[in-house]
Amino acid sequence: MEREHFSRQYDAELKNIREKLLEMGGKVELMINDSLKALVERDSTLADRVIAYDHEINRLEILIDEKCLEVLALRQPAARDLRFITLALKIVTDLERIGDQCRNIGKRVKELNDEPVLKPYIDLPRMATWAGVMVKEALDAFVRGDDQLALKVCRDDSFVDALNEQIQRELLTFMIEDSSTISRSMKINNISKCLERIADHATNVAEMVIFMVNGKDIRHTEV
Amino acid sequence: MEREHFSRQYDAELKNIREKLLEMGGKVELMINDSLKALVERDSTLADRVIAYDHEINRLEILIDEKCLEVLALRQPAARDLRFITLALKIVTDLERIGDQCRNIGKRVKELNDEPVLKPYIDLPRMATWAGVMVKEALDAFVRGDDQLALKVCRDDSFVDALNEQIQRELLTFMIEDSSTISRSMKINNISKCLERIADHATNVAEMVIFMVNGKDIRHTEV
Repeated sequence: MEREHFSRQYDAELKNIREKLLEMGGKVELMINDSLKALVERDSTLADRVIAYDHEINRLEILIDEKCLEVLALRQPAARDLRFITLALKIVTDLERIGDQCRNIGKRVKELNDEPVLKPYIDLPRMATWAGVMVKEALDAFVRGDDQLALKVCRDDSFVDALNEQIQRELLTFMIEDSSTISRSMKINNISKCLERIADHATNVAEMVIFMVNGKDIRHTEV
Repeated sequence: MEREHFSRQYDAELKNIREKLLEMGGKVELMINDSLKALVERDSTLADRVIAYDHEINRLEILIDEKCLEVLALRQPAARDLRFITLALKIVTDLERIGDQCRNIGKRVKELNDEPVLKPYIDLPRMATWAGVMVKEALDAFVRGDDQLALKVCRDDSFVDALNEQIQRELLTFMIEDSSTISRSMKINNISKCLERIADHATNVAEMVIFMVNGKDIRHTEV
């Protein structure tokens, strides 16, 4: 009876960590979307909200870290659960840094909104959509232990990289043709890099998931 | 007697993790220095060596991760040791990403070495020196549990940020005055950002150390 109670509570704790991670993931996804919406719609109030929202992500990071430490200290998990908890600890750091990137995007958006539009944004929102989906799928892969989905995330990263390179080439042309676009181009370039880094974080998470599922490290091999 | 043997072995395992982390830290420090040396001395062979060396950093990441998991599974550490191990798991990720940044610098250096020199590099090597010292001190703070040293690292980050901003302003002037410098300026800008990110990783490590020592989270408060 005692034992069963322990086990039920332990399961609930693991479930809670899983849920909190998904909640945190959902919130950074929202930040990614909102930061780009603020850019496309030139909405500096929304950009301010994204910047302020980073606090919520930081709060969740501390909370989940503490929960993981508690489970490690009190439950002494083994095998699969141990791997799950230690990965949760790493993943939470990636999510927090995605939040930081969204805050950076928010800041650049506000600066860009004070200047005339350089060009309609087509590729950046596409990149943001890809990156957001990658974050979602990487976390889904984690909580479900789905290595196939994780592998898809790793592969999708190349699309984001390609978009980033395309945007950079385009901006280079702008800058060379008209020096009055340089300052704005640099800011757009910065946003593109932030999105690329967000996709990198998602890829890191996905690689760790594949490791968790297969006990095989693909982090530093080609996929 | 049995117990004493267990304890000696356990201590040796913790010591080994500490040493491997310092070894990894020393190696990324070397990568930082070499990548900048390759830039200043226009040495593409050295840049290639930095790029190839990233494999060694990745190998150490996997090794240390495994050692930490082993200790967690077999020794069920509590309190201080538990915090040490879980932080080691996070820190190793930061070190690995510093290696990635050095590899990125190496790639940009090779591209820059194929073009005429834009200007003598003064601030970038200074930035690299700061960043390298920050990485070293953050790790020293970790293994010694020295929160004062960690606090210094957090404060030093503002110097690197200031240098990065100064470099970016200077490059903007170059680009606006002479469009033939744009492509090279963008690459130098990229290197500056890589160094800034390296310093950010060191700061992240330092913040976690302060948390470990004081049980208080300063990650998301002002220092």
